[in-house]
Amino acid sequence: MIKRITVKTRGQGLYEFTDKVRKCLSEVNINSGLCTLFVRHTSCSMIIQENADSTAKDDLENWLNRLVPEGDSLYTHTFEGRDDMPAHIKSVLTATHLAVPFDNQALLLGTWQGVYLWEHRHAPHSREIVVHFS
Amino acid sequence: MIKRITVKTRGQGLYEFTDKVRKCLSEVNINSGLCTLFVRHTSCSMIIQENADSTAKDDLENWLNRLVPEGDSLYTHTFEGRDDMPAHIKSVLTATHLAVPFDNQALLLGTWQGVYLWEHRHAPHSREIVVHFS
Amino acid sequence: MIKRITVKTRGQGLYEFTDKVRKCLSEVNINSGLCTLFVRHTSCSMIIQENADSTAKDDLENWLNRLVPEGDSLYTHTFEGRDDMPAHIKSVLTATHLAVPFDNQALLLGTWQGVYLWEHRHAPHSREIVVHFS
Repeated sequence: MIKRITVKTRGQGLYEFTDKVRKCLSEVNINSGLCTLFVRHTSCSMIIQENADSTAKDDLENWLNRLVPEGDSLYTHTFEGRDDMPAHIKSVLTATHLAVPFDNQALLLGTWQGVYLWEHRHAPHSREIVVHFS
Repeated sequence: MIKRITVKTRGQGLYEFTDKVRKCLSEVNINSGLCTLFVRHTSCSMIIQENADSTAKDDLENWLNRLVPEGDSLYTHTFEGRDDMPAHIKSVLTATHLAVPFDNQALLLGTWQGVYLWEHRHAPHSREIVVHFS
Repeated sequence: MIKRITVKTRGQGLYEFTDKVRKCLSEVNINSGLCTLFVRHTSCSMIIQENADSTAKDDLENWLNRLVPEGDSLYTHTFEGRDDMPAHIKSVLTATHLAVPFDNQALLLGTWQGVYLWEHRHAPHSREIVVHFS
């Protein structure tokens, strides 16, 4: 069973979309199984992280921006903008797909876990995520 | 088919639990398929790595600790302890879920591959892993 | 349904094998589902990245080689060669498995996404990938 989620982004940052995943799950008639999320882009990614305190999100963003800065003289792939090559590297260091088991039609996330789209580009984007239930 | 594994940790480090995964697999009546592991925490993670030589484990641990040190002045998320924000970053750089195919009721791991829980916090923890077979 | 792919490598770099995955998919009689790829080694890995411009591949390779250099005095696991411990670290920072949903017997990759084996060792290798369809 395949469904689709769109996450609209307004620049770099972590966008939680756990509720959209829960809504998809509520629409499929499977009691127990695995939910796999796949993002169809190479300049954003996904993570599962703490959703209790927004300072953790800020620190993740700032830490990754320091590790993979714009304007690095190493980059030759620059014609799509200063934020493009850092976006590809950040995408590679995080995840293009996630998987979360579910039971009794509820995602088995831990108490503090949320599902995030990580936008690595400055311009607004509409990000497509394919959701597979099995 | 969903099962659970608990890994008890005694501080930072890599804890192999391949045998616990094999035991789960032996308890389900599926000959061939996919085993997906999901860890329900944001301050530990999982990897598949070499289990032949423990120096590889030590180097992984030391390398990641140098890349993501405690006490970095960048961190603002500090109230849960000095090891908390580094733990979230390390978790993001590694994996919250793994998947291993199996056939004839045997995991199709390579000769030197083992499944590890990577504890990123100093205090002892009891880490919950959900195991999904399909 | 389990199949196998072999990717022959001739030193470090990104080797696209999207066509081999498509060929496997064409051989299985499943219309819609999830394709999971698992690499049976700890010194190479896999990523999904842009396949439109080869400079992106070069930059990824050079960036990761700078982050995880050979000859780092931190390494104690050195008897398998100077490129061995960096290979394990690079493997941990990227992915041992990938998953791509498919529908109407076509992979739901984004327009610019390709599937890559990332060889982290200098010597030629024959890399085994297990492909699971569900």
